[in-house]
Amino acid sequence: MSTPLVIGVDVGGTTIRSGVVDAAGRILRSGACDTPERSQEAVLAALEGAIRAFLSDPIAAVGLGVPSHLERGTGRLLQATNVALADLDLEAFVRERFGLPVGVENDANAAALAEWKLGAGRGLSTLVVLTLGTGVGGGLVLDGHLYRGWAELGHVVVQVDGPPCQGACTGRGHLEALVSGTAADRAARELWGADADARLLVERAQQGDGAAQARMAQMGHILGAAVGSFANLFDPDLVVVGGGFGIAAGDLLLEPARAALRREALAPARERLDIVPAELGPDAGLVGAALVGREALERAA
Amino acid sequence: MSTPLVIGVDVGGTTIRSGVVDAAGRILRSGACDTPERSQEAVLAALEGAIRAFLSDPIAAVGLGVPSHLERGTGRLLQATNVALADLDLEAFVRERFGLPVGVENDANAAALAEWKLGAGRGLSTLVVLTLGTGVGGGLVLDGHLYRGWAELGHVVVQVDGPPCQGACTGRGHLEALVSGTAADRAARELWGADADARLLVERAQQGDGAAQARMAQMGHILGAAVGSFANLFDPDLVVVGGGFGIAAGDLLLEPARAALRREALAPARERLDIVPAELGPDAGLVGAALVGREALERAA
Repeated sequence: MSTPLVIGVDVGGTTIRSGVVDAAGRILRSGACDTPERSQEAVLAALEGAIRAFLSDPIAAVGLGVPSHLERGTGRLLQATNVALADLDLEAFVRERFGLPVGVENDANAAALAEWKLGAGRGLSTLVVLTLGTGVGGGLVLDGHLYRGWAELGHVVVQVDGPPCQGACTGRGHLEALVSGTAADRAARELWGADADARLLVERAQQGDGAAQARMAQMGHILGAAVGSFANLFDPDLVVVGGGFGIAAGDLLLEPARAALRREALAPARERLDIVPAELGPDAGLVGAALVGREALERAA
Repeated sequence: MSTPLVIGVDVGGTTIRSGVVDAAGRILRSGACDTPERSQEAVLAALEGAIRAFLSDPIAAVGLGVPSHLERGTGRLLQATNVALADLDLEAFVRERFGLPVGVENDANAAALAEWKLGAGRGLSTLVVLTLGTGVGGGLVLDGHLYRGWAELGHVVVQVDGPPCQGACTGRGHLEALVSGTAADRAARELWGADADARLLVERAQQGDGAAQARMAQMGHILGAAVGSFANLFDPDLVVVGGGFGIAAGDLLLEPARAALRREALAPARERLDIVPAELGPDAGLVGAALVGREALERAA
């Protein structure tokens, strides 16, 4: 079959979304269910249902994006964040259930894969994709290959001994603590009280409010410093910024980030590297999961 | 030949060192000359002489480590630091002169390759090697391969808007500006006046001087934060710290760095990742260059 169909499954803390994706990355059909909270068995049963729902199509492979690190070498799922999955060979589980080639990848890496193959990074060789939402995720494409390691881009230290991360991370001054929807919520509350949030901060900055613009500019400045670190490590062709907060904020973040990048990056990245918005939006996770399945299909061929 | 000999050339700002290295990484013979300052032609002539000096041995390949970024894809030398080499296909130049397989690599990457193959990182799959000297260099081994990109580990931002780098880098708060021989020189001068330097700082800290110990501990703390960033990006099996200042300082730096790493790294790296001293010392550059030549030989075979 020249354009086989693949099922992608995007496993999130509240929702499991699955769908049928064609070779061009189009979502032909999709559905969603709540992520069961009580046990790994319940989550696995939900995943099985989310895949089975689309097997009436001629499916050639399955790909899953999961909010977990995978063990280097084995691909074993170590410990998911906000989902009851831990210490599990999820690829083998799904493969044995359905007898199809299966790929499993960290969800942020899968979304970066989608942005590379089908979004703002099309045709490039080395790419940094940052997802600024409640937290900060991301992925790396290095020399024409998705980097399969942790790539926890939100947990680089940008300000030693700075504000603490939330949740399981014990670090301080990480990018996620300084530039994220959560950090923007906090900035908004400091300015306007308990009911204010990131959405209001972005809205008021867009309307010209000086205090809001200053907070957004400071976050953009810090974002640009972190991007400078990535530039000096990887010399990427492009940096792509997505995620709900990243897309909503747009140039309020990206303009000051570009200015900071010019200072922090070594030549010649300093002159030529740009930071642009992601293109795929909320579908990146599902499409990326399907691309991971497509890669498993190619390995099996 | 089962153990072919390779010439390694370590091109530094003041000295070009070259030698014959066997398959076990032993330096059988070596020599050095001053690095000509005036022109690229003079440097190339010196490199030619440094190689020709050892051609009476049965040489199978040549490897060079250069203080320059190489262009991704082509391997072209972009712009060397403190050496008159720029915009040049050095590999082709040497190959055409001697008719042997030739490899060229960034000098810090070459030293990391040596520490991986023959030093503290033997047998591991993913490794971060940091070289703390006058400046900070380093290299990455990712999933069993030397990463051929920039890997300018000394130019990650650890303290946004912190102290400036020296030389061509316009950035602020980079690891190199905060933890290096140069940063230690500055700390010593602040404590004891213009004649004090990094060597005195380390010596006094080892003798129990409280102010010296506090400065070393602060540098180790910042080093550990940067290592935390690398842990969260790459999940390495081990972090190796070398370089003149790094080796002299030893546990004065590494103990506080390990403590900071415990805080900054995500689980499970937090519990299991260690930071250890490099093993190869000042020979790492020459041996690494020879290993780069050996890789070129294997590609040619």
